[in-house]
Amino acid sequence: MTIVEAGTVRRGPGRPRDEDIDGQIIAATLALIDAEEEVTVSRIVERSGVSRAALYRRWPSLTTLIAAALDVGRTVPPPVGAEGDLHAAVMTAVFGDSGAVTASGYSEVRFRHRIRLVMADRALQKAYWRSHVSRRRMPVEAALRRGIERGILCADLDVEACFDAMAGVAYYQLVVRGDRFEEPGSQARMIAALDVIWRGMLA
Amino acid sequence: MTIVEAGTVRRGPGRPRDEDIDGQIIAATLALIDAEEEVTVSRIVERSGVSRAALYRRWPSLTTLIAAALDVGRTVPPPVGAEGDLHAAVMTAVFGDSGAVTASGYSEVRFRHRIRLVMADRALQKAYWRSHVSRRRMPVEAALRRGIERGILCADLDVEACFDAMAGVAYYQLVVRGDRFEEPGSQARMIAALDVIWRGMLA
Repeated sequence: MTIVEAGTVRRGPGRPRDEDIDGQIIAATLALIDAEEEVTVSRIVERSGVSRAALYRRWPSLTTLIAAALDVGRTVPPPVGAEGDLHAAVMTAVFGDSGAVTASGYSEVRFRHRIRLVMADRALQKAYWRSHVSRRRMPVEAALRRGIERGILCADLDVEACFDAMAGVAYYQLVVRGDRFEEPGSQARMIAALDVIWRGMLA
Repeated sequence: MTIVEAGTVRRGPGRPRDEDIDGQIIAATLALIDAEEEVTVSRIVERSGVSRAALYRRWPSLTTLIAAALDVGRTVPPPVGAEGDLHAAVMTAVFGDSGAVTASGYSEVRFRHRIRLVMADRALQKAYWRSHVSRRRMPVEAALRRGIERGILCADLDVEACFDAMAGVAYYQLVVRGDRFEEPGSQARMIAALDVIWRGMLA
């Protein structure tokens, strides 16, 4: 069975385009994840109709392929405008990215799957961290560094630790409390906690 | 097969004591969790040698039994001394409880299992939150409330949100970064983040 996400790409006869093959492999991987089936190269080959050789040419390890599949629907956010109202810009960016967890492109169901998979496999967790999560943090971290330069934030701030604290509040709602991101209680706690963290970061 | 944790309880002949039965049921449940086998009442009955009726008398639902088993080795921390150096007392308590995650009685392996199980089952997650996690937060939350009364912390502080932020940093290390709690990098980020959060809570 071939599962391809509906797209607008038209192609002529002959050899399929590379993006089509990528999409078929990713779609088959996601279908296995969503069906809670074990994800193996053989099963992806079977579901996607793509050859094993073509798969390995693109993703030398299953771990990096699963990491890529888990990230479908999530993108690196755009740069955060750090020259005007830094507080508003950072809060919007942090809420925006947390909100993306439950936005249409990246359902809470898939978020919960992702956490289960990475807790079962530290190599996958590290691969996903390096190639995806750590990249998504960069715009906000850059804005915080600019805030230090502008004299708004504490000069000796540990920017990575501050991001951990802000994102940690969101993860706590979903992973520990089991509350959905959009519930009023989660929203109120996130706003209150981000407020405290921001105050603590000020110069 | 009966699995009972080594204990010092001596008992005479006849009907086993209630604590023994509790221990046998919990030990069998943990053995299934640690072996990554599916946890069902039938399997627990088989492994523990305890009757189905005795099991249901103690834990009317499998969910609450699993929640109890997951918490073995963790306890509600003692009250936090909130009359002296509040900052030092709160930091010690927060680090102590996070440290307990990887302390001998509660291995990181079991922590990772716990997260996987609760991400797969929101009812279990909520049960575990209500009966265990939320209770463990109380000593620190009480100390923060006392800090407000003493005029040390902001009068309008959302104490629950502040705890979420502090604990969230620790969860972020383990669940998102995939770093162990005791790694120097995790420790440094936690110290830096807790410092920022504390500064933000001050009156």
